[in-house]
Amino acid sequence: MTTFSDIDRLAISTMRLLAVDAVSKANSGHPGAPLGMAPAAHVLLRNMRMNPKNPGWINRDRFVLSNGHACALLYSMLHLTGYDFSIEDLKSFRQLHSKTPGHPEFELPGVEVTTGPLGQGVCNAVGIAIAQANFAATYNKPEFTLSDSYTYVFLGDGCLQEGVSSEASSLAGHLQLGNLVAIYDDNKITIDGDTKVSFDEDVLKRYEAYGWEVLTVNKGDDDLASIDAAIKQAQKSKDKPTIIKLTTIIGYGSLNEGSHSVHGSPLKADDVKQLKKKFGFDPEQSFVVPQEVYDFYQKSVAQPGAELNAKWDQLFSSFQKRYPEVGKELVRRLSGKLPENWDEKLPRYTPKDSAVATRKLSEMVFEDIYAELPELIGGSADLTPSNLTRWNEAVDFQPTNSGIGNYAGRYIRYGIREHGMGAIMNGISAFGANYKPYGGTFLNFVSYAAGAVRLSALSGHPVIWVATHDSIGLGEDGPTHQPIETLAHFRALPNTSVWRPADGNEVSAAYKSALESKHTPHIIALSRQNLPQLKGSTVENALKGGYVLQEVSNPDIILIGTGSEVSLCVEAAQLLAAKNIKTRIVSMPDTLTFDKQPTEYRLSVLPDRVPIMSVEVLSTAGWSKYAHQSFGLHTFGASGKASDVFKYFDFVPEGVASRAEKTIAFYKGKEVDSPLKTAF
Amino acid sequence: MTTFSDIDRLAISTMRLLAVDAVSKANSGHPGAPLGMAPAAHVLLRNMRMNPKNPGWINRDRFVLSNGHACALLYSMLHLTGYDFSIEDLKSFRQLHSKTPGHPEFELPGVEVTTGPLGQGVCNAVGIAIAQANFAATYNKPEFTLSDSYTYVFLGDGCLQEGVSSEASSLAGHLQLGNLVAIYDDNKITIDGDTKVSFDEDVLKRYEAYGWEVLTVNKGDDDLASIDAAIKQAQKSKDKPTIIKLTTIIGYGSLNEGSHSVHGSPLKADDVKQLKKKFGFDPEQSFVVPQEVYDFYQKSVAQPGAELNAKWDQLFSSFQKRYPEVGKELVRRLSGKLPENWDEKLPRYTPKDSAVATRKLSEMVFEDIYAELPELIGGSADLTPSNLTRWNEAVDFQPTNSGIGNYAGRYIRYGIREHGMGAIMNGISAFGANYKPYGGTFLNFVSYAAGAVRLSALSGHPVIWVATHDSIGLGEDGPTHQPIETLAHFRALPNTSVWRPADGNEVSAAYKSALESKHTPHIIALSRQNLPQLKGSTVENALKGGYVLQEVSNPDIILIGTGSEVSLCVEAAQLLAAKNIKTRIVSMPDTLTFDKQPTEYRLSVLPDRVPIMSVEVLSTAGWSKYAHQSFGLHTFGASGKASDVFKYFDFVPEGVASRAEKTIAFYKGKEVDSPLKTAF
Ligand SMILES: [Ca+2]
Ligand SMILES: [Ca+2]
Repeated sequence: MTTFSDIDRLAISTMRLLAVDAVSKANSGHPGAPLGMAPAAHVLLRNMRMNPKNPGWINRDRFVLSNGHACALLYSMLHLTGYDFSIEDLKSFRQLHSKTPGHPEFELPGVEVTTGPLGQGVCNAVGIAIAQANFAATYNKPEFTLSDSYTYVFLGDGCLQEGVSSEASSLAGHLQLGNLVAIYDDNKITIDGDTKVSFDEDVLKRYEAYGWEVLTVNKGDDDLASIDAAIKQAQKSKDKPTIIKLTTIIGYGSLNEGSHSVHGSPLKADDVKQLKKKFGFDPEQSFVVPQEVYDFYQKSVAQPGAELNAKWDQLFSSFQKRYPEVGKELVRRLSGKLPENWDEKLPRYTPKDSAVATRKLSEMVFEDIYAELPELIGGSADLTPSNLTRWNEAVDFQPTNSGIGNYAGRYIRYGIREHGMGAIMNGISAFGANYKPYGGTFLNFVSYAAGAVRLSALSGHPVIWVATHDSIGLGEDGPTHQPIETLAHFRALPNTSVWRPADGNEVSAAYKSALESKHTPHIIALSRQNLPQLKGSTVENALKGGYVLQEVSNPDIILIGTGSEVSLCVEAAQLLAAKNIKTRIVSMPDTLTFDKQPTEYRLSVLPDRVPIMSVEVLSTAGWSKYAHQSFGLHTFGASGKASDVFKYFDFVPEGVASRAEKTIAFYKGKEVDSPLKTAF
Repeated sequence: MTTFSDIDRLAISTMRLLAVDAVSKANSGHPGAPLGMAPAAHVLLRNMRMNPKNPGWINRDRFVLSNGHACALLYSMLHLTGYDFSIEDLKSFRQLHSKTPGHPEFELPGVEVTTGPLGQGVCNAVGIAIAQANFAATYNKPEFTLSDSYTYVFLGDGCLQEGVSSEASSLAGHLQLGNLVAIYDDNKITIDGDTKVSFDEDVLKRYEAYGWEVLTVNKGDDDLASIDAAIKQAQKSKDKPTIIKLTTIIGYGSLNEGSHSVHGSPLKADDVKQLKKKFGFDPEQSFVVPQEVYDFYQKSVAQPGAELNAKWDQLFSSFQKRYPEVGKELVRRLSGKLPENWDEKLPRYTPKDSAVATRKLSEMVFEDIYAELPELIGGSADLTPSNLTRWNEAVDFQPTNSGIGNYAGRYIRYGIREHGMGAIMNGISAFGANYKPYGGTFLNFVSYAAGAVRLSALSGHPVIWVATHDSIGLGEDGPTHQPIETLAHFRALPNTSVWRPADGNEVSAAYKSALESKHTPHIIALSRQNLPQLKGSTVENALKGGYVLQEVSNPDIILIGTGSEVSLCVEAAQLLAAKNIKTRIVSMPDTLTFDKQPTEYRLSVLPDRVPIMSVEVLSTAGWSKYAHQSFGLHTFGASGKASDVFKYFDFVPEGVASRAEKTIAFYKGKEVDSPLKTAF
């Protein structure tokens, strides 16, 4: 048991007041949760293994603040324990370009994941815990425990109400993630007031139903010994995640403690003063940290952490000598590099190869690369036989006692939980060790996970969505399953690669781009139906994002297609050729990648003086950046045989050709600039 | 107790085989769940109140097939009980333009909601149950029980794994919805195989934690009496929703029963034959319905239902005499009409009125219209003080014993459950009686509900999203809360009105459009910050979706703005005027509405020969339909004071004006066509 004394209480008061001062100075933010949760934060710090001078140490314990609005608490914790956060940083809380934005952001030292959108953080923590379990099962040896870290997560009522957390929590229970400890701030308050207006379920009973260990601390804002005992108990339960319900008073110490008025607005000046007095601080001073508090955190947290880190470094050194091969692999992974020439394994195709659905080609990529890339870990949201996301020899990531896999397995059965899957992938990526998580579902249902996809893009987690059944080409399942708006949506999301490969070479390119990406999530949209291997496609061409697939001299029109519509454009071009109309065909598997090419190259693909028409059997929104005219869908799809549905919407060679002719006629005699040329 | 005999078993076999035949004929679909669930479906029908000849009867019991992929079962049920579904319709299952698409669609007779995307249906059912409870509390009188219907929902493992169902189920327990009965098909199989690969939580314990009554039937594919007893028990528990766990064998009777191979593919021909033999049918015949089965359903379901409907009609007739005023209101609501001249209550503004945030103006609309529109029912996902969605005198929709509201209340505390809220709104709308549900959250978090919004649009539920904090203008909360892609996403979704009003008159127009809409959901994006009342704005102008706000003769440029950027354009125009540049300003609060205006009108707003630049502080995707150049954001936002953030991204009058000048220069000497003119 840790013993607590006056210095602990002084440290807690300091932490509370730093958070309050930050919010007051910004005149914006959330003082309530920091006041209530500072004791738990302090006790947790005393139980955590971390080295503030080396925030990237792979065997650190992780701390996720799922209720990210309480970040004034997190920044105070990081400052006090010696991370690279100064008092000046706290003073510029929530100001433009500060290191202390309104919600914690992944790239900051000591911030494990970006949080704020409720429910995400706890799912990220599940992902981190999965990665740790896999990492440990893969690399630990009897005499070398390289990985045994815990993931701790604070969460509030909001995180528990969001469905995404239910998805990940149910899976975490199934997976028996004993390395995961959630601390629930049960303060009975949300923005709308008392939780009894909408949330009176029995949370612990629910988590028991998921298979978690559940613990309770009644005086969470005061009873340090009980908090400590609960955390230690949680550490001991190795085959279950633990949730500790901590009853706290929101805004503890404030004149308005226990009310929702302290949740999201600065305390009044008078209130801050009485609070400082109450905690034994000078009411006239702000951002005060007694030296003994710095010293205490140094001695009790930072120094032991640094020592453990140094010991681990020695251990790893010996490991490398004892297991040179694996050691090399680990060094590589920890440096964030892929194996040299890994991409030589990617399959390549010629037009003589047979027509294959791109989802199937994606499966063939997995077959060819899984052995090369131990960092590849993924699964499907219960659509494995449709998404084709599992290589033949894959072992499921499952607890050993389940008899259906083990933690060294790299295939995750996510269940029908797309949003949870997306958030868990972010956590796996955030763990480090170059983990490359992927997840399969129908393209249409990536939208269920929009909240998590957005955070992949914002945080720069290069996760991979294997998004099959990418159009009305899925046929009979009908409009509930046929994406229309989906590509437009994710292309409009900054820092998101949306690939829609047309054939095998482009599928290989998509995976090369995805797996080599350091900071950009990839959505790879794949067909259900077979597509021919195209003349003119190469992996290298496709890696430019857009390229001339089939060239003619002096084209009358340029057709840009993606995915299944590229071969449709090729067929349309043949009809047009019969009328002496010359067509250049451009394949554009990923607009974001194309945008990054030099202007000269882009203009060589999409030059002046030729009308350009895009062809994609989804919403046309966004295509005008590349084309003068767009052929797409502006209604929902229909249930029927895929070929019937394509025909109904006129996505047949004749339909494309006739629109190409109209486009040529429309621009006849007009000065036609490349759409790439803009005023600013 | 209902008694069951051979005719019941014959009816069940008929229903099973109709579903199997439909799937086989289509060579596509899901035979497994219909085979397992037909007995429950049959027993449920015998317990339901419905009139197949009048599917719109307001006091019918509702049946929602949340596992919508089992729709061959639903279509068979509807055919057998006499809804407008013929054997020919069953024979054209999953074919283009048939009445029996791959997943059930709302507009079909007897289909209460569109299902298929997992998790949605059970949430819709919660919404229907809420609407029924509100309707009953509002209109029932001691001697006139106009409303006492039940909502029944079938759901499978997928629906239970999806987080959205957790959100709505937790709320349903809190709300004590005794009129809701869920029947869980516990067949231990999902697409990935045994549920033990990802889903071994204790579902009933979880539902108990939510406050539901939980019941179990062990032999769900055989024990009709126990199913019947459970349904009757569920009907009796008036202060709790009920979930009945029905253990079934997926693909019951098939050679592959109990395995996932019967889930989503037609049975083999041999298997179908042995199945028919097993059930006592001719293995060589298909789509067979013994006449006594038709007669039985007629006698035991359709006829009693028709009689109850007739009795209800009489009751309603007497009600109208006894309560003529309320009777008139009810007749109006049941006919789907708003009160005459209701819109005269909408506030109107002049430029002299002070600058107000559009979220505040939205609140003022609620204050002015709530008393006129008893069908208006809504709330917020725990952001009431931010979304400003609650009128002052509102009563919360809560169970009476909670002491904080009653079922006649029209303000719903959704909790932090955006996706559940969206799906519940769809259910409330589907109930009928002209209910107009609305729900508040930050615009950025409407994305959490993308799955439900898509189904609003596909089904044509005219629900209303009050989406505040609609840009980087929310300031300090930072990029996790600042929408960038959101408007582009929902504008690319067919049949979705995305309003972004610029001032008070436009807010009133947005609500007029939303409330008068019969089939189109509305997302109303509202500012956190104050915006001036604009010269040139009127409700009537705004109702065209786009209009000339400020005119000049022979403009050099047209600036199109939405929301907070319209007044920015006005300021920019003043800077430009000082340089003798003449600017027409177009306000475009809703592009979908604008698209519906006559060509002539649209061309008068956006004519040839003038370069057009759009200004909106989000993604520019989609704007090229209306503008030659677009000023927007292609990165995430930033945490800071709103004014600092706007300035950083150059969304200030000078930034707009300088880009306008560049646009003029770029198009100088070029032939400029209206972007509205297209080749096809
Ligand atoms: Ca709380
Ligand atoms: Ca199932």
